[in-house]
Amino acid sequence: MQTTNEKIALLRAAMKAAGANACLIPSSDPHISEYLPAHWSARRYFSGFTGSVGNLVVTETASALWVDGRYFVQAAHQLEGSEIVLQKMGVEGVPTLMEYLTDALGEGQVLAVDGMVTATSTMKELQKALAKKGASVKSVDLVEGNWPDRPAVPASEAFLLDETYAGRSAAEKLGDLRAELAKQGAGAMVVCRLDSVAWLLNLRASDLDNTPFALAYCFVTPDDAILFINTARLPAEAAEALGRQGVRVTDYDHLLGALTGYHHDQTVLVDEAGTNWAVYSALAGNPVFTLKAGEDPIQALKGVKNPVEIENLKNAHLRDGVAMVKFQMWLEEKMAAGEAVTEVDVDEKLMALRSEQALNIGVSFDTIAAWGANAAMMHYHATPGNCATLAPKGFLLVDCGGQYLDGTTDITRTYALGELTDNERTYYTYVLKSHIDMAKLQFLNTCTGGNLDVIARAPVWAHGIDYRCGTGHGVGFVGGVHEGPHNLRITNHTVFKPGMIVTDEPGIYEEGEVGIRIENELLCCERVKNQYGQFLGFEPVTYCPIDLTPVRPELLDADEKEWLNAFHQMVREKLTPHLSAAEAAWLADKTKALA
Amino acid sequence: MQTTNEKIALLRAAMKAAGANACLIPSSDPHISEYLPAHWSARRYFSGFTGSVGNLVVTETASALWVDGRYFVQAAHQLEGSEIVLQKMGVEGVPTLMEYLTDALGEGQVLAVDGMVTATSTMKELQKALAKKGASVKSVDLVEGNWPDRPAVPASEAFLLDETYAGRSAAEKLGDLRAELAKQGAGAMVVCRLDSVAWLLNLRASDLDNTPFALAYCFVTPDDAILFINTARLPAEAAEALGRQGVRVTDYDHLLGALTGYHHDQTVLVDEAGTNWAVYSALAGNPVFTLKAGEDPIQALKGVKNPVEIENLKNAHLRDGVAMVKFQMWLEEKMAAGEAVTEVDVDEKLMALRSEQALNIGVSFDTIAAWGANAAMMHYHATPGNCATLAPKGFLLVDCGGQYLDGTTDITRTYALGELTDNERTYYTYVLKSHIDMAKLQFLNTCTGGNLDVIARAPVWAHGIDYRCGTGHGVGFVGGVHEGPHNLRITNHTVFKPGMIVTDEPGIYEEGEVGIRIENELLCCERVKNQYGQFLGFEPVTYCPIDLTPVRPELLDADEKEWLNAFHQMVREKLTPHLSAAEAAWLADKTKALA
Repeated sequence: MQTTNEKIALLRAAMKAAGANACLIPSSDPHISEYLPAHWSARRYFSGFTGSVGNLVVTETASALWVDGRYFVQAAHQLEGSEIVLQKMGVEGVPTLMEYLTDALGEGQVLAVDGMVTATSTMKELQKALAKKGASVKSVDLVEGNWPDRPAVPASEAFLLDETYAGRSAAEKLGDLRAELAKQGAGAMVVCRLDSVAWLLNLRASDLDNTPFALAYCFVTPDDAILFINTARLPAEAAEALGRQGVRVTDYDHLLGALTGYHHDQTVLVDEAGTNWAVYSALAGNPVFTLKAGEDPIQALKGVKNPVEIENLKNAHLRDGVAMVKFQMWLEEKMAAGEAVTEVDVDEKLMALRSEQALNIGVSFDTIAAWGANAAMMHYHATPGNCATLAPKGFLLVDCGGQYLDGTTDITRTYALGELTDNERTYYTYVLKSHIDMAKLQFLNTCTGGNLDVIARAPVWAHGIDYRCGTGHGVGFVGGVHEGPHNLRITNHTVFKPGMIVTDEPGIYEEGEVGIRIENELLCCERVKNQYGQFLGFEPVTYCPIDLTPVRPELLDADEKEWLNAFHQMVREKLTPHLSAAEAAWLADKTKALA
Repeated sequence: MQTTNEKIALLRAAMKAAGANACLIPSSDPHISEYLPAHWSARRYFSGFTGSVGNLVVTETASALWVDGRYFVQAAHQLEGSEIVLQKMGVEGVPTLMEYLTDALGEGQVLAVDGMVTATSTMKELQKALAKKGASVKSVDLVEGNWPDRPAVPASEAFLLDETYAGRSAAEKLGDLRAELAKQGAGAMVVCRLDSVAWLLNLRASDLDNTPFALAYCFVTPDDAILFINTARLPAEAAEALGRQGVRVTDYDHLLGALTGYHHDQTVLVDEAGTNWAVYSALAGNPVFTLKAGEDPIQALKGVKNPVEIENLKNAHLRDGVAMVKFQMWLEEKMAAGEAVTEVDVDEKLMALRSEQALNIGVSFDTIAAWGANAAMMHYHATPGNCATLAPKGFLLVDCGGQYLDGTTDITRTYALGELTDNERTYYTYVLKSHIDMAKLQFLNTCTGGNLDVIARAPVWAHGIDYRCGTGHGVGFVGGVHEGPHNLRITNHTVFKPGMIVTDEPGIYEEGEVGIRIENELLCCERVKNQYGQFLGFEPVTYCPIDLTPVRPELLDADEKEWLNAFHQMVREKLTPHLSAAEAAWLADKTKALA
């Protein structure tokens, strides 16, 4: 196996052969996905950093990797011994990727980037930034040929999600999309994002670990919709069912040719952030197309769950909560018996318990089971060769979720395993306070995530503490565990609407000491409407108790305690009918009201 | 005197003569000011609505006035008996100004707007919106000639604010501006906003009621700066002093000619929201100018007060606080003696007490002294013919401020005059909670006002109540009582910086029942800097007790009480040295800690 430095050397040789002076290996695929099929995990392969997001730059004399706050600790570990310099995004004095590239490249020099896996917006930004220095960008694939044993393009069997789960048919959703396109003055669109394709056609597969998407594009015009997918993997009855919804099916690799050869005039909406440069170039190169930049309307459409999806996802959360209760009981028994339990055991137990639940089709992301200081790494993932054995003190942080045919779940609980330090109890209570303050917020329907995020941060900011990530994110329906367009971050500009799902997951992460996170999914709901407007609020759809043993009640306000007690009562009422008598008794104890 | 309907009829006749089918009379002047010299208060004159902001539209068959939430109640009163339809901005189902105009005007029709008093951005928006209907905009002044006894253009004596107050010289500030222009790739700028001209040249006058600006433009190039002002009103020594700072002086009316006749190539930064259409057209019509749209850099520069300004404005607030203490004692004595006190008496007493203070040059805006339900009108102004006499029950809301040679103040207090209803006590405590939650917030230095605003709203939103205005606004230095670029509104995108001043003035306004507002000015300050970044916080610079008699202590958290007690202790320590023994004893009682 090659070392990271040897891999970087291969990239340098390929750069030189391609006439380039630097290359950028992004975390991306042809669909500008967050979670990548192994085939497109080039950044992971060449850098050795296994986190979900990061950009690798290799120049003739240096190499560097940009990662966000979630990954500072993990990336530093994983880059050890390699030549790659870690660039901590957002930290004072650290250059941005663009600053680094414009600094590194001079007049006449060339940056190599694979346009097939690079968003149009990124490509344009790179071109603009480098043009100031007289440098340019060349679209070239340096990865293929330099990656021995590169995993194949995935080809899992695709299927259509039943309308009893999805709530609306592909034909209805195509109608919704065409209406939105018309509002934006466009008639056509190449749907590139996998989450958008999945929602639009109710199409699913297992092409990505944990995220049930099928690698596919859909070209939608006023009177036609063509699904580009590896046809060998689409069962005939699914293709026929799509045909009845007005969708023709052809091979995945035919897209660029189909766009180049298209011969009707069309105004095409291009979501530059979600469309790769190769697709954009094919559209831009065909004179029948008039391009109109805009946001993919499917993102806004699918961000609001329909009533059928809401009913379904609540059922999925109910079964997920049952699995979580069984897990916590198992954990307590093992700890009480003094048996050795590792972080990997936790992961496996959770996977097993979820798989016993009806309609389960896997987990929604790699479980984070992190004990003690490991939990300070926000996206830590224990492996059999590198994992801690739990001891009866401190916290176990468990962030996990399931994929079900009727919903996708994401939950974090932090369990006290025994004796806690004062700091641990205080930090836990701060995080709980942050969580509750967001969950209990009532707000006007003009607010964006950028307006609301501070509500969860204020209780930790008051103590000079921050969590270096959003407060929460949208969650897909039988889809990605991170889906937009809304989220809880200061930079978000999407207005909250009833039917949106968002996670509420503030945390405290003190390197080398402790990591705490408490996460529920919240459903945005209508509240009172009066002379001031329509108020909205959140309903938790995560049904699982929050560990009360670490709480310092004197740090919670009366309102916060009231929310917590109401939440626990709701959890008890929801779960009890699905539990054994012993489990129900255990739950009754765990959900006792805090005085 | 003509009735409103008669005035509207005159506008219709003028429209017709000008070949227009509708006209827009905005609240604006050549400098796109918020507060207008009487000469440019055409919207007020023609509509009868006296609020500071509003837009009047007259078509051949209808007329309408758009006002924001602060003015719904007041405008409804003032439009009574006229043909003008009130359009409540932001209320569901109410068309925006643009929607109304595009609906009202058809193919080939013309909207008349005076480009001299219309922002370039507004003009472009109007042109774009109407073009969709085949309608157009014509720049024409319909006001002059139809306004008998129109007030003259103001010509108060101008003066230069001493550098011991302003902290930086005009020459230094011109250097700051040129550096910012260069960053934006421009060399020149026509400074149009009066607050920008005032800051840039330390120039002041009394051209506007309560806001010490001089009507003037400044044309800045890399090696020249020309002040356009009615030269008759600029004392010779001020003109000479400006000359020593590199500023030439010429007549106000010469600006358009100077731009048209300019003959050096210049890239000119144009802040389209702060530059009138006539100036823009003169620039655009001269081929030596390359126009570059961007924000007026002075807005950001002056938004951060320099250390000298901060020291000065704290002194101004101290004297302002002394006046407020004397006022409250006077009020209590009058009420205790059962003497008749009207809202106008309150206004006059406050003006008299401020004028006794050193360096006072007037008030910073028309005092709002509103008793009982009158206070539900956020910008109520009592007049001798229309004012209430205080009774010993309910609240008196007083929102007022002073202009001093060393600062500008803005404060609101709501005083209990006697018996209160349960609602009054509860609402007062909610508002106090909102005020305190914002004031005590610690936050990262990446936050905008749009991120923070919700902190003050959450406590009232929790009860289905909102205030239909921002939580707060920036305040000028010996300038406008509303100055940006930062403020506390969900739509603001300016990042908070140490040295910014912002008001914190949440409120509750229940029509026909009660109005409550508590306002301090806050200075943004640095707090702890650690691995999470630089935290900021607020220091109150308003030194005046907050009435505790209406407070329901059980509704405040421990943190909130702690802030309140610390604030009162600080007020006591600051003011006591400047008070008589009797006043100091009174203050000691008013600032007692809340248990």
